[in-house]
Amino acid sequence: MALISPSRRLRRTPFSDGVEAAGVKAYTVYNRMLLPTMFRTVEEDYAHLKSAVQLWDVSVERQVEVRGPDAGRLVQMLTPRDLRGMLPGQCYYMPVVDETGGMLNDPVVLKLAEDRWWISIADSDLLFWVKGVAQGYRLDVLVDEPDVSPLAVQGPKADELMARVFGDAVRDIRFFRFGWFDFQGHDMVIARSGYSKQGGFEIYVEGWDVGMPLWNALMEAGRDLDVQAGCPNAIERIEGGLLSYGNDMTDDNTPHECGLGRFCNTATAVGCIGRDALLRVAKEGPVQQIRAIAIDTKALPSCDRAWPLMAGKKRVGQVTSAAYSPDYSEGVAIGMVRMTHWDEGTQLHVQSPSGLLPAEVRESFWI
Amino acid sequence: MALISPSRRLRRTPFSDGVEAAGVKAYTVYNRMLLPTMFRTVEEDYAHLKSAVQLWDVSVERQVEVRGPDAGRLVQMLTPRDLRGMLPGQCYYMPVVDETGGMLNDPVVLKLAEDRWWISIADSDLLFWVKGVAQGYRLDVLVDEPDVSPLAVQGPKADELMARVFGDAVRDIRFFRFGWFDFQGHDMVIARSGYSKQGGFEIYVEGWDVGMPLWNALMEAGRDLDVQAGCPNAIERIEGGLLSYGNDMTDDNTPHECGLGRFCNTATAVGCIGRDALLRVAKEGPVQQIRAIAIDTKALPSCDRAWPLMAGKKRVGQVTSAAYSPDYSEGVAIGMVRMTHWDEGTQLHVQSPSGLLPAEVRESFWI
Repeated sequence: MALISPSRRLRRTPFSDGVEAAGVKAYTVYNRMLLPTMFRTVEEDYAHLKSAVQLWDVSVERQVEVRGPDAGRLVQMLTPRDLRGMLPGQCYYMPVVDETGGMLNDPVVLKLAEDRWWISIADSDLLFWVKGVAQGYRLDVLVDEPDVSPLAVQGPKADELMARVFGDAVRDIRFFRFGWFDFQGHDMVIARSGYSKQGGFEIYVEGWDVGMPLWNALMEAGRDLDVQAGCPNAIERIEGGLLSYGNDMTDDNTPHECGLGRFCNTATAVGCIGRDALLRVAKEGPVQQIRAIAIDTKALPSCDRAWPLMAGKKRVGQVTSAAYSPDYSEGVAIGMVRMTHWDEGTQLHVQSPSGLLPAEVRESFWI
Repeated sequence: MALISPSRRLRRTPFSDGVEAAGVKAYTVYNRMLLPTMFRTVEEDYAHLKSAVQLWDVSVERQVEVRGPDAGRLVQMLTPRDLRGMLPGQCYYMPVVDETGGMLNDPVVLKLAEDRWWISIADSDLLFWVKGVAQGYRLDVLVDEPDVSPLAVQGPKADELMARVFGDAVRDIRFFRFGWFDFQGHDMVIARSGYSKQGGFEIYVEGWDVGMPLWNALMEAGRDLDVQAGCPNAIERIEGGLLSYGNDMTDDNTPHECGLGRFCNTATAVGCIGRDALLRVAKEGPVQQIRAIAIDTKALPSCDRAWPLMAGKKRVGQVTSAAYSPDYSEGVAIGMVRMTHWDEGTQLHVQSPSGLLPAEVRESFWI
């Protein structure tokens, strides 16, 4: 692996001092901000995540705040998911599409109030699209990026750790719901959510200066739980089928191709900018779709580009995320496969840098 | 320095194979794509850039293509620079602002034809803003990112190298003009431009597959000129006062603060979205502005965050890019300084990780 050159443009986070003290070894860049990717080895981080509890600096999940009388209307313009039944205190996973139905981002949106929303974004400057649309339609809203940096607490011991710092009431937060909790006089939004399948929370830390005090308090409170600094884990998130925007889908893809049709209410999402484009695909279904792909191998290099999926000499798809799984003793991967070859059990080959490897379409992801 | 974790999301370029073969040591991420930052050492790369010729993979300068009857109108909406006199074949450096006058990007725009423009962007997803505005105003345009990847040829021997591959006519291209040239049957836009003060060209390589053949042809043709793989050089670009969006300015800043008032024709740029917000600042002038800052030191660490500029105990600005210059034997830096302390010769101190260092406001940059 090459080195990463530091610069102000690759923004640090409120938790960077803690991340560095914990011995971060590698980063990626996400929304022009540093996202840790490895502390010990990816395999050690993976085993620890599944058995204990980790603090993740996911400040890169920047918020697009939409406030004002037209806030609800604007958020509905962004997505084919029908938001009419959404209540304050709920989180929705929400595909965002352009006028062609191509995905621009796949954020989680938090409804703070009827006229105030946070869109917790994946890796693209969604702020620019939202601002541009608001400007063009002359909507009565304010759109900006507030000083909010999510800190995730993930792993089987997350409830125990969080209860020690925020009180037992955090245990009652339901999946994809959030509440307001106090930390040293600061109100914090805490949601039961996160980019792993190990359970846990995301704390929306408002105000840069409270970042390290919170990090330290959690580290201190969880010492006997073996709390460690961690990060979204490449192996675990593939096992869990958690998609990554920019890796597994781009603006070339519709939500339906990404298996997100269940988050699209194309018939009723009136006002959604991409609705017309998606009506046909919603009716007829996509011709390619995301699938779990098992690879018969004992090791895999980093998937830094699309690896073609072959049926004989015919390209029928591509793998976009892949890793060797210690727990499942095979290669786990996410791929986009043509409908002619997407049925469970279909035998394919993947063109990896290690050569042509046998691959199989699975019905579901591993976790 | 930490490592960078590869993934498909950090996009490779048509020239990545060449960059890797040349022994790239470090990258940054720019527009979600890999940008090399070092091949030998930054100092060796710097000395070579000033004496020979380098090929730079600047594919990260992605293009936003705007086509259609409303193309000219839309491009004018983006910028306070008056584009009415611009002819096909010209490049304009063009601050892009939002409705508050805050900078969203500082691209170079190429007018290919009255109804076709390429916006060659700095590090932000300007595509999303342009698409959002086009959508909201229902303009009759197509906006997308074409398969175009710039390759820069920079250094004092750039003319000689380019003439060998494209013919002597390239020597006649004037600064910030472009022409169409043939390479193996492919039409290529070649502009006299680039992110250094050493002279040279940017080739807008259209079509991924022609990337490596062109790279190899230039390497082969320039062997006796000591052509090497290079990249924008942190020291040289600061000496030259070349700003970096995300480092030296953000959406918090107006063009006037960035010293780009000469590219703003606020009185006549009718249709520019940020025009109203900029009228007052254009009249009264900004209260802080970019300045060349000399730092009295023999070495500097990477400037990975804003370093406060102090007048005694008062913060009067910040340094956002800095490096030790071997040629000028001092620290060279770019900073934003309050008007109370921006005059030439003002003595300040900069709070760097190496401690409090003496700093001086200079009238102009070094090159």
